[in-house]
Amino acid sequence: MRQSHLFTKTKKESPSDEVSLNAELLIKAGFINKEMAGVYSYLPLGLRVIKKIENIIREEMNAIGGQEMKTSIFQNKETWEKSGRWSDDVVDNWFKTKLKNGGEVGLSFTNEEAHANILKQYINSYKDLPVYPYDFKDIFRNETRSKSGILRGREFYWKALYSFSKDEEEHNVFYEKAKLAYKNIFQRAGIGHLTYLTFASGGTFSKFSHEFQTLTGAGEDTIYIDENKGIAINQEVYNDEVMESLELKKEELVEKRGIEVGNIFSLGTKFSEPFDLKYKNQNGEEKLVIMGSYGIGLGRLMGTIVEVLSDDKGIIWPETVSPFKVHLLVLGNDEKILEEANNLYENLLLKDVEVLFDDRVDVSAGEKFADSDLIGIPYRIVISKRSLADGGYEIKKRIEDKGVIVKGEDLLDIIVSWGIKI
Amino acid sequence: MRQSHLFTKTKKESPSDEVSLNAELLIKAGFINKEMAGVYSYLPLGLRVIKKIENIIREEMNAIGGQEMKTSIFQNKETWEKSGRWSDDVVDNWFKTKLKNGGEVGLSFTNEEAHANILKQYINSYKDLPVYPYDFKDIFRNETRSKSGILRGREFYWKALYSFSKDEEEHNVFYEKAKLAYKNIFQRAGIGHLTYLTFASGGTFSKFSHEFQTLTGAGEDTIYIDENKGIAINQEVYNDEVMESLELKKEELVEKRGIEVGNIFSLGTKFSEPFDLKYKNQNGEEKLVIMGSYGIGLGRLMGTIVEVLSDDKGIIWPETVSPFKVHLLVLGNDEKILEEANNLYENLLLKDVEVLFDDRVDVSAGEKFADSDLIGIPYRIVISKRSLADGGYEIKKRIEDKGVIVKGEDLLDIIVSWGIKI
Repeated sequence: MRQSHLFTKTKKESPSDEVSLNAELLIKAGFINKEMAGVYSYLPLGLRVIKKIENIIREEMNAIGGQEMKTSIFQNKETWEKSGRWSDDVVDNWFKTKLKNGGEVGLSFTNEEAHANILKQYINSYKDLPVYPYDFKDIFRNETRSKSGILRGREFYWKALYSFSKDEEEHNVFYEKAKLAYKNIFQRAGIGHLTYLTFASGGTFSKFSHEFQTLTGAGEDTIYIDENKGIAINQEVYNDEVMESLELKKEELVEKRGIEVGNIFSLGTKFSEPFDLKYKNQNGEEKLVIMGSYGIGLGRLMGTIVEVLSDDKGIIWPETVSPFKVHLLVLGNDEKILEEANNLYENLLLKDVEVLFDDRVDVSAGEKFADSDLIGIPYRIVISKRSLADGGYEIKKRIEDKGVIVKGEDLLDIIVSWGIKI
Repeated sequence: MRQSHLFTKTKKESPSDEVSLNAELLIKAGFINKEMAGVYSYLPLGLRVIKKIENIIREEMNAIGGQEMKTSIFQNKETWEKSGRWSDDVVDNWFKTKLKNGGEVGLSFTNEEAHANILKQYINSYKDLPVYPYDFKDIFRNETRSKSGILRGREFYWKALYSFSKDEEEHNVFYEKAKLAYKNIFQRAGIGHLTYLTFASGGTFSKFSHEFQTLTGAGEDTIYIDENKGIAINQEVYNDEVMESLELKKEELVEKRGIEVGNIFSLGTKFSEPFDLKYKNQNGEEKLVIMGSYGIGLGRLMGTIVEVLSDDKGIIWPETVSPFKVHLLVLGNDEKILEEANNLYENLLLKDVEVLFDDRVDVSAGEKFADSDLIGIPYRIVISKRSLADGGYEIKKRIEDKGVIVKGEDLLDIIVSWGIKI
């Protein structure tokens, strides 16, 4: 894409009420727009990141048998009364709204009821199980505290998968698969090295739930990590009994702050009972379905990446979720150099390299460099009088301080050697 | 996909309060779930159709310079007060909800204000124009009448693009491009032959708005079509003066019912004035931006396709939006035949043919045929004892009554000759 066509521009300032690093950088770089506290729009660059994250998650969910659907945001009272969660006394962060012809509807704050209600129609026999429906949807929570940018919103974009299994054994097999899928997601999104499978409080149906916590001082949670084993305990279950059951030793654990980027937990029959989700087994006996829940906030994941992968100049996107792979900068207004830059841009497009081409005229080299660092695309290519005098193009990784000069004919080989998919 | 894994099943009945043909067929075939009047969830088959429609629209919008973003559903009062549309006296179908810490927010019922408010930050100079942001999003309208299935919902999935141009001339050039893009969309979605560019009432800023009306008795609008010229007039502007200005003759017009599947209109400075959307031209003078609006409801388009392309057995999807290209049916429980069907399924997947494989055992041939007709995938391939005795596989198009027997080795060639992208 030509940067001269991109409607966003970088900004010097973010809104004065914006105190989180993620939102500050993303607003300055033109990825998101703050609509109100806890509500953000994704601008073209931001949506490209969200779509990449979405595709990673979709691939991993499909690989373990997920079936994508799109459930409605409007939720009806009758469905939620079955589980007892319609009442504002039980759920204190509902958004509800009034129908003109009477009655109230809720806005999805989670998805168990919607899925259970749909699956109820299709589950009768053991042959109908297991199934793993999921969706990506906007979720709404009436938060009073919304100061963490896109880490915690009143409106946020979320993936939820629910598993419907015949029994505990089948449930557990899938649960372990989901754990691995989640590890893959955070690995592929570039924060695997900072993300710990964390044991947190369970509930009626299982001893633990499992969170994926990414280490950062900006995190809301306190966790105790075992760096060698790559696992952690959430403060809420940090006690001798739990440590013993996980074969962890207090002296090997380090206290850290983390952001919960994903969580999975067993639901047992919590929802299959009220929704009468039963199936007939091979002996013709009626059995309750066993459910599990697997969530990831896509905006939260994007915000976490920004929190942990940035420096004082801006964002440092992992290749896999960067809005573009290459940021091509042309400096100066020399016609011949502009033409050469244009040709390179067209060639990169022909090779399916995702490239943002800073073709803006009357913008100084300093501004272009600063914008490029702020936006944070992993590879920068510069064409200028100086680079051509030095023998070609300057290629620099965002994470490195110095670039190298390469000849035009070597450029594509170098890009390939850096592992950019072309 | 293996049909034995698909969690939906066909149904004999749709809800008794469902009176529209589109929702009835889509519910029976397992594409959608009715959550309440005017609110539907898209199940896996339905979402596949929506995604194909979305991709067609995205390609056409990008081709004319569109930049996709994802604006928030929550809308704040201050933004909408600028245009005067916050008031329930002005807009009578708002859904609003209350924030816990005071104040109200609205749910998007349209998108002009959201786009104008964002673009205000980025438009300063003539160099920043024109720009064409768009998004796909869930839209909410507090309708009291919701009996048209997915044609008219309280919640619906919508594409909206807004054009921001320097002057009328630049606006008009884009407006004509958008008309062609819309024609392409309906052509590609398989209803081009039934869809008429229709002149409808304009407003302060232009003589006409333009609707795309698809002919069907189920339509809400009355239009007068000129079949030769391929254009129509909406009843609301059907008068001598309009006919004359369009060079249409009353005696050549035929009265029909239509569904409005898309509409485009000029906004002039209606929103750029209240949002103070100005730019400096090359002489340094401040000028107001000229806007235009271009909407398509994706669910409505899907519902319209079902209304006009179905028979008494079920849906007849156009290839471009069908959830799968091929429906492969294996009949009987003969091990050898099942194995051959499995091999064919795997081979089709290797060739990237999108195939739904009805591998269900203990389901009769009659049921499989009925399900296949109801679901409406354009090509059906049957493997059975009989087809093998006749020399191979039976291939039948959904729109044709009789199939032909082809040899296994010819199968892929035939599929290719029918134009399925493999």
